[in-house]
Amino acid sequence: MSGNTIGKLFTVTTFGESHGPGLGCIIDGCPPGLELDAADLQRDLDRRKPGTSRFTTQRREADEVRIMSGVFEGRTTGTAIGLLIENTDQRSKDYSNIANTFRPAHADYTYNHKYGFRDYRGGGRSSARETAMRVAAGAVAKKYLLSRYGIEVRGYLAQLGPIRAARLDWEQVDANPFFCPDKDAVPELEAYMAALNKEGNSIGARINVVASNVMPGLGEPVFDRLDADIAHAMMGINAVKGVEIGAGFACVEQKGTEHRDLLTPEGFVGNAAGGVLGGISSGQDITVSIALKPTSSIRQPGATIDTEGRAMEMVTHGRHDPCVGIRATPIAEAMLAIVLLDHVLRHRGQNADVQCATPAIPAARREDDAGGSAG
Amino acid sequence: MSGNTIGKLFTVTTFGESHGPGLGCIIDGCPPGLELDAADLQRDLDRRKPGTSRFTTQRREADEVRIMSGVFEGRTTGTAIGLLIENTDQRSKDYSNIANTFRPAHADYTYNHKYGFRDYRGGGRSSARETAMRVAAGAVAKKYLLSRYGIEVRGYLAQLGPIRAARLDWEQVDANPFFCPDKDAVPELEAYMAALNKEGNSIGARINVVASNVMPGLGEPVFDRLDADIAHAMMGINAVKGVEIGAGFACVEQKGTEHRDLLTPEGFVGNAAGGVLGGISSGQDITVSIALKPTSSIRQPGATIDTEGRAMEMVTHGRHDPCVGIRATPIAEAMLAIVLLDHVLRHRGQNADVQCATPAIPAARREDDAGGSAG
Amino acid sequence: MSGNTIGKLFTVTTFGESHGPGLGCIIDGCPPGLELDAADLQRDLDRRKPGTSRFTTQRREADEVRIMSGVFEGRTTGTAIGLLIENTDQRSKDYSNIANTFRPAHADYTYNHKYGFRDYRGGGRSSARETAMRVAAGAVAKKYLLSRYGIEVRGYLAQLGPIRAARLDWEQVDANPFFCPDKDAVPELEAYMAALNKEGNSIGARINVVASNVMPGLGEPVFDRLDADIAHAMMGINAVKGVEIGAGFACVEQKGTEHRDLLTPEGFVGNAAGGVLGGISSGQDITVSIALKPTSSIRQPGATIDTEGRAMEMVTHGRHDPCVGIRATPIAEAMLAIVLLDHVLRHRGQNADVQCATPAIPAARREDDAGGSAG
Amino acid sequence: MSGNTIGKLFTVTTFGESHGPGLGCIIDGCPPGLELDAADLQRDLDRRKPGTSRFTTQRREADEVRIMSGVFEGRTTGTAIGLLIENTDQRSKDYSNIANTFRPAHADYTYNHKYGFRDYRGGGRSSARETAMRVAAGAVAKKYLLSRYGIEVRGYLAQLGPIRAARLDWEQVDANPFFCPDKDAVPELEAYMAALNKEGNSIGARINVVASNVMPGLGEPVFDRLDADIAHAMMGINAVKGVEIGAGFACVEQKGTEHRDLLTPEGFVGNAAGGVLGGISSGQDITVSIALKPTSSIRQPGATIDTEGRAMEMVTHGRHDPCVGIRATPIAEAMLAIVLLDHVLRHRGQNADVQCATPAIPAARREDDAGGSAG
Repeated sequence: MSGNTIGKLFTVTTFGESHGPGLGCIIDGCPPGLELDAADLQRDLDRRKPGTSRFTTQRREADEVRIMSGVFEGRTTGTAIGLLIENTDQRSKDYSNIANTFRPAHADYTYNHKYGFRDYRGGGRSSARETAMRVAAGAVAKKYLLSRYGIEVRGYLAQLGPIRAARLDWEQVDANPFFCPDKDAVPELEAYMAALNKEGNSIGARINVVASNVMPGLGEPVFDRLDADIAHAMMGINAVKGVEIGAGFACVEQKGTEHRDLLTPEGFVGNAAGGVLGGISSGQDITVSIALKPTSSIRQPGATIDTEGRAMEMVTHGRHDPCVGIRATPIAEAMLAIVLLDHVLRHRGQNADVQCATPAIPAARREDDAGGSAG
Repeated sequence: MSGNTIGKLFTVTTFGESHGPGLGCIIDGCPPGLELDAADLQRDLDRRKPGTSRFTTQRREADEVRIMSGVFEGRTTGTAIGLLIENTDQRSKDYSNIANTFRPAHADYTYNHKYGFRDYRGGGRSSARETAMRVAAGAVAKKYLLSRYGIEVRGYLAQLGPIRAARLDWEQVDANPFFCPDKDAVPELEAYMAALNKEGNSIGARINVVASNVMPGLGEPVFDRLDADIAHAMMGINAVKGVEIGAGFACVEQKGTEHRDLLTPEGFVGNAAGGVLGGISSGQDITVSIALKPTSSIRQPGATIDTEGRAMEMVTHGRHDPCVGIRATPIAEAMLAIVLLDHVLRHRGQNADVQCATPAIPAARREDDAGGSAG
Repeated sequence: MSGNTIGKLFTVTTFGESHGPGLGCIIDGCPPGLELDAADLQRDLDRRKPGTSRFTTQRREADEVRIMSGVFEGRTTGTAIGLLIENTDQRSKDYSNIANTFRPAHADYTYNHKYGFRDYRGGGRSSARETAMRVAAGAVAKKYLLSRYGIEVRGYLAQLGPIRAARLDWEQVDANPFFCPDKDAVPELEAYMAALNKEGNSIGARINVVASNVMPGLGEPVFDRLDADIAHAMMGINAVKGVEIGAGFACVEQKGTEHRDLLTPEGFVGNAAGGVLGGISSGQDITVSIALKPTSSIRQPGATIDTEGRAMEMVTHGRHDPCVGIRATPIAEAMLAIVLLDHVLRHRGQNADVQCATPAIPAARREDDAGGSAG
Repeated sequence: MSGNTIGKLFTVTTFGESHGPGLGCIIDGCPPGLELDAADLQRDLDRRKPGTSRFTTQRREADEVRIMSGVFEGRTTGTAIGLLIENTDQRSKDYSNIANTFRPAHADYTYNHKYGFRDYRGGGRSSARETAMRVAAGAVAKKYLLSRYGIEVRGYLAQLGPIRAARLDWEQVDANPFFCPDKDAVPELEAYMAALNKEGNSIGARINVVASNVMPGLGEPVFDRLDADIAHAMMGINAVKGVEIGAGFACVEQKGTEHRDLLTPEGFVGNAAGGVLGGISSGQDITVSIALKPTSSIRQPGATIDTEGRAMEMVTHGRHDPCVGIRATPIAEAMLAIVLLDHVLRHRGQNADVQCATPAIPAARREDDAGGSAG
């Protein structure tokens, strides 16, 4: 199957360019009987939506989603769910600048080499706008996971440039435009972003996502391990350059005695594993951390080439997020939820008969640490 | 498709437990006409093979591979290639200890919860021995990529615990049992490993892999981006907890002006992108870095539970790698080669007609840095 | 991947219920650079559209398709193509009859058992209306195949109840509402259908589809043979109960001397193979024949049960095709085109390097026979 | 995924040429806990094995299968099951005749055009020998279906050339070398085959396969309908040219009143549907009928061309089945079982929660008719 589909049993296929008529997706394999209406999706879409604070792009999109199929009398029917968002902010604009130049560190150059030409309006298919549909589809997955199994998927901003969230207070995450779980860091973030805007520059970020109440048993070794499929989904988000599960890169300097999570009848001791052992969920929280690069759409000029291969200088004007990481929190949550639901269904398919004699042990009673690497 | 297959057009499907009759794989979709014999595979298998130095497990396996199909008169025929390694080191042994206990931080607990029971001999399917077949399949991919396109895939140990390779000398990589590209670090590594063995402990590592001479255009947005599929393949290797492309997690603290690789007619300036822009290869070197956890099979006792859920203490005896990262270099190379070839074929399938008017610009003339994050 | 997607490289994923807000599909993997606009799709949609003659259902649907993405400045960009048809004929209607009863020989009973409940309005997802999107996607495939390779995919009504087309005149196919290639059979068909309508009954049909100018080499043994994938696509059309390639079931009584198509430098002698040998196209015309059952939505009463399992009698009123086979011609063409394009891309992916020393020999100079089995 | 894999959740991937070192397959996704040993597979392999009667090829193959992985202490573990049959009858032989000529109506010509060259020894990958692995994998599926759900999959020879089985007596099927369910037809078949052998000719056949006790609900509309996936699997068997479900091509001449199976609380009335409505199993028997062409390997000379494109005459000597349909019965059973198990797992994955309020009604009490079309 081609590259615009993710998942094996619960699949999400998307289409849409930032300045075309609209965006859409097809969710296939959703279990029937789930209560669902557009408001369930809109909630997360609004969290991702641009223009909600002065720290994100001022491009305005209604991002109003319609459910086109697969829901009847308020419940999913088990057939394909079609979603549609029509683009409303298609203001006519002069793209001649962008049309013949490759913005440095963008997909312009690579799309041209792959396909011979590209839809250059607003980044076309490579625009971050594409992720709206991931968020909508993720909201469906989240709702099923939570209502059927009590699995909760939540994310937050762990670091933005030099500023780390020093504590994880879930209540705070949606109380500020940064998805920052540390109230005290918010003024610092505001000041930093203001200075960055002035400078015409951008900055990277780290987002952590956690799934709790996950049953043991999800993941399909040896290639479709749960962590492998999570890495695939996360690295496939625009601007992501790194993915960690559990201790992540910190394990390079850890000894076995430090890293291994011991097991006791009362629970795992620690969660360096990030909830995955041998590629299969252990029942501990699944903890994922991702790195997002600073956008290259900045007001400072940079060397580049045009479509004929000649040297140019490029300055990006217009409405861009100075930190794409900020709005990535709902996207990362969505991707994790999609992967988890896909694996729930795959696991049920093969192992519906399985009864494990051993009782599942409780998740780790670890102290949450919001900064640094995942979990 | 189920979890033991990787790839869409160039696919690798594996089977085999560490103490069963043997390991095997089926490579499907290999282009026809490639000169191939068992020796091509044996070379990389020998690099991965245990027992080759005193710093790896002393378990001895001939790891002798046979090509069972798909090659005729010395060339691949385009049909499925069957590979087989029969296990020779199946010494009878008392597994009663392991049978009823979950080794901490191993897949024992999760396999039991997924499947209801498990083949506990030597880790069964979750044994690192499974990766032999990845290496064999990767050797096929490597050979095609190199002979047809000049693409070279090479890896090395970038860090082991606190010790970093300070320089990247490709000549050195195969000249020491650590795949360390820095000759001067080798004595330090030897001393560190000796102390570790004495301690009965284990240590994590970082492996870097680089693909050079990759054409621009590989990768299938939005979900099967090249970096996403690389992350999937890498995170699916035993013990891997983190994956970076290019600057990786360093980008969290980078500004746009620092991170973006400018374009000039003479080449990219820098390679923070790690060779992938918008999920598509740019022609720069593809640089990947992975973190491998310290094995949990150590001689120091640790708390765990048995299959009835009762508290136990576990000490692992036997032949185990104190640093599984060491032998991971050929595995990581194999996985990268498999992903690249799969994407070459996918790209040819869709875009065989494409002529890009813009000439491909040279890869970055960056100074290689062996330590730290990828590339 | 779930059941609403077809294809591996050129994939089509559809959604939509007959009485919901609309129908849509996502075409993924379409080669870039193909000139395409909505009119290209509308032509085939209009051929399939209901209400165009008195021999098909009088349900009226504008079936106006919009291209939502993947086309820029009149050419496909290589990214996902979103298509949308909004339903316009959603007249409010009393469905209470159908809601609690299973129409005999319909999908009502099976959808309920699979999903627990169903969207019963107009058949919901199992409505023939779903095939509109196949036709739209097939039009894209047809256009690429024809413009890039000269491959032409055409179908016709070979038999309707007892009436067979006695000759194959391609010019006639679109000149009558039956897609009948035999002008002389048309009055007979008209009379037969009029009598059938009076009777309140329905009738089966046979449709033949032919692809010409297909290059040798398409098909992926051993499971995704070209004929196997064609059978999958054809049997997946509503109401199809049988699929033949070439001689089809006639081969049961053929001897080897009769069946085998001899090869001469001037061409194949005959085409009993239907253009596929060993699962791979031979360069002969690909000839496919399918059987479509008579619709069960007839005005004659029939025994059935209600959703509580009690005996009922059912009479279907409303706008139904008395011969669903009539409108199946463009659908069958679409499915064949989709399969062929998918296999063209798969073949290019693996075998881009292949040069066959033997020149392709001409397709069979057989006399076309329109009736009976395919080819 | 490439063409040597079938299935989505229960997948079978095969390799092997008729005259290479061996054949093998990997079964992935098999539910754990199934009691399994090699004898379970050997039973069906022996039914398919050549050389068991004078009406099939005298080529002798031990066809002894080894289970290489995925089974521990007599039960499947849920991990990949590797199967291996080493070829034993590799007598050295002069293939120069075949090497440079295309046998008419064989895959020789098409393999060459696809891959540039081919393994010509005994047909290589296109040999019927390849089907041994399907039979082995099918035996696993059959055992699970029967032991877990009581689903039984059985086939028989319905017609051979002009001779039809006039009655269906399951007891007789394995009592004669033709898998003929009609004892009285056996002497006739023997006489016919003897004459055919003398003539140096071959003949086509029709095989019927029936699955009984199938639960309603299997199948994934709109493309992976159960009947569509069955058609894919069946048409992918060597020499198959046609597939019917239920009434099959007979429905072309049926009216709605004849074709539709009415529903009563006591059961379906008739089974024209062949157990599938709207692409989903109904609980009726699933009845499939396939047409197999006469082999083209006959002793009568035929025109062909050589690899340079020059006219030649070809006479096939050696050990060939004069009716490949005879040995196809266990193969067709295997393919149906594989498809059914795959769909059981897919259905469980998505619809594990579903409770249908309507009780399943009994399968049709139809009179079995062995000849003619399926069911």
